[in-house]
Amino acid sequence: MFAVTILGNNSAIPTLTRHPTAQIVTCNDQLLLVDCGEGTQIQMAKYGIRRSKLRYIFISHLHGDHYFGLIGLLNTLSLMGRTEPLSVYAPPELEQIIQLQLDCSATVLKFELSFVPLQPGYSGLILEDRELQVRCFPTQHRISCFGFSFEWRKRKRKLLPDQARAYEIPAAYYSKLQDGADYQRKDGSIVKNDWVTLPPPAGKRYVYCADTIYDTGLLPWLQGADMIYHETTYLHDLQERAAERYHSTSVQAASLAAAAGAGKLLIGHFSSKYAELQPFLDESRPVFAHTEIAEEGVTYLI
Amino acid sequence: MFAVTILGNNSAIPTLTRHPTAQIVTCNDQLLLVDCGEGTQIQMAKYGIRRSKLRYIFISHLHGDHYFGLIGLLNTLSLMGRTEPLSVYAPPELEQIIQLQLDCSATVLKFELSFVPLQPGYSGLILEDRELQVRCFPTQHRISCFGFSFEWRKRKRKLLPDQARAYEIPAAYYSKLQDGADYQRKDGSIVKNDWVTLPPPAGKRYVYCADTIYDTGLLPWLQGADMIYHETTYLHDLQERAAERYHSTSVQAASLAAAAGAGKLLIGHFSSKYAELQPFLDESRPVFAHTEIAEEGVTYLI
Repeated sequence: MFAVTILGNNSAIPTLTRHPTAQIVTCNDQLLLVDCGEGTQIQMAKYGIRRSKLRYIFISHLHGDHYFGLIGLLNTLSLMGRTEPLSVYAPPELEQIIQLQLDCSATVLKFELSFVPLQPGYSGLILEDRELQVRCFPTQHRISCFGFSFEWRKRKRKLLPDQARAYEIPAAYYSKLQDGADYQRKDGSIVKNDWVTLPPPAGKRYVYCADTIYDTGLLPWLQGADMIYHETTYLHDLQERAAERYHSTSVQAASLAAAAGAGKLLIGHFSSKYAELQPFLDESRPVFAHTEIAEEGVTYLI
Repeated sequence: MFAVTILGNNSAIPTLTRHPTAQIVTCNDQLLLVDCGEGTQIQMAKYGIRRSKLRYIFISHLHGDHYFGLIGLLNTLSLMGRTEPLSVYAPPELEQIIQLQLDCSATVLKFELSFVPLQPGYSGLILEDRELQVRCFPTQHRISCFGFSFEWRKRKRKLLPDQARAYEIPAAYYSKLQDGADYQRKDGSIVKNDWVTLPPPAGKRYVYCADTIYDTGLLPWLQGADMIYHETTYLHDLQERAAERYHSTSVQAASLAAAAGAGKLLIGHFSSKYAELQPFLDESRPVFAHTEIAEEGVTYLI
């Protein structure tokens, strides 16, 4: 299973019904948290996210609506007795922010917390874990900010059992075949791996664009993604304000998704000024039909 | 009007129905925030607290469930365009925690934020403002921690209009009489102030004990208070755990309120392990009848 669950879809000022940015990317039994606005730990409880399954946290940038909930979440995980390590990928200053608060409360976390600093402008692979690859890329915002590309790729080749049996390969060797190994028979002859297996199924890719001005420079990261999350802080009549604040509009996000040939577009990070979100769909769908509001509490299969 | 509104009554791990500590003390048209756990800004919105009326913030100590919501609240106040100054009374390290987070997000608050550092062990008057006096006192907790005493005292003496008229004092002078001035008549004779006024009505006092071990050393601060807030993290069977963690139980809080001859006791800061709060009342009321659960969203007149 490869999916994203929305915990918050609002921009800086939280409202009674919309929370600041946070998402859970589920990759089989692993949970990854992407941004962590204030109240994220409560949203996780509300939507039945098992906090103990959390393994990696990605913080796009240090505007508060994307990370003020982190210190509380870490504190709670420790109080709940977590011992498994946890890694946080974030702009380097976050480590000092967290450590200072732990020091001031004389708190020693019960688990190992490691920070992987994302230096301004960096792009590339930051995590490779079993079937998952995560890359980061800079977005153009008022302060250093990163998008993240999550790629789920099954690594095991698909076994063709009839073929394997025909070549008299013992079943105990099947797992090595799935890993790509050839098989040497007793007579010394070689059974090539691709005679008895197929390549792994194609991967799936989810690209989270964090906060960003409208920027076609993102397209190489978006190209062919199965699902994109792109912010739409404003409706399109406020495109000038969006540009001034290094944010984007409904139409801009949709046009990027269309240009990228993406499978689906999730939009979020709505300004608190908007009580109704339907106008965002009304503006986006004519440009890119497969657009959805990133609804809090909803899980989207990638 | 002198009242307290509860925004959070839980201890460290928030639950779906109980939030970490935060209270609003209303003193006529001024609002004072006492502690500010994660999500306080949303609780204020939920319960119709006018954030713009906030003038002073008091943070008892730097355990996260008492201040993690502060940075988000400050950020929101600034985004909402606040320009009136705001004062935060707190352990000295809080200023660095807040400033670091503002710096990392390149945020310049639109209002003047001043910190009044509460040095470990300090007790005494920290704020005198129109009809309000606030004092702090240390409580015994795992880190430096303060309780706060809020005293509302009408400063104007009560005018006796019949007496004033009998002495032929012009009405334009009444306001000076209320401030305590004598009146000199044209013939040079003096009308003593206390011939035409009564002393101001008695003040009201609310004492917030923050987090604390059971400590009869607090009694001088509690004596005769109209209302006390005292934590009851645990029911009384866990009095040993309470002592180890520098917390208190239901029975302990009630016995202090009884010994102090207080008007009313509010109890809160319940451990997340308790789904039901009625047992806290069942244990407290036999010791001190005027005990109430500090219910979120409820305003208690002092």
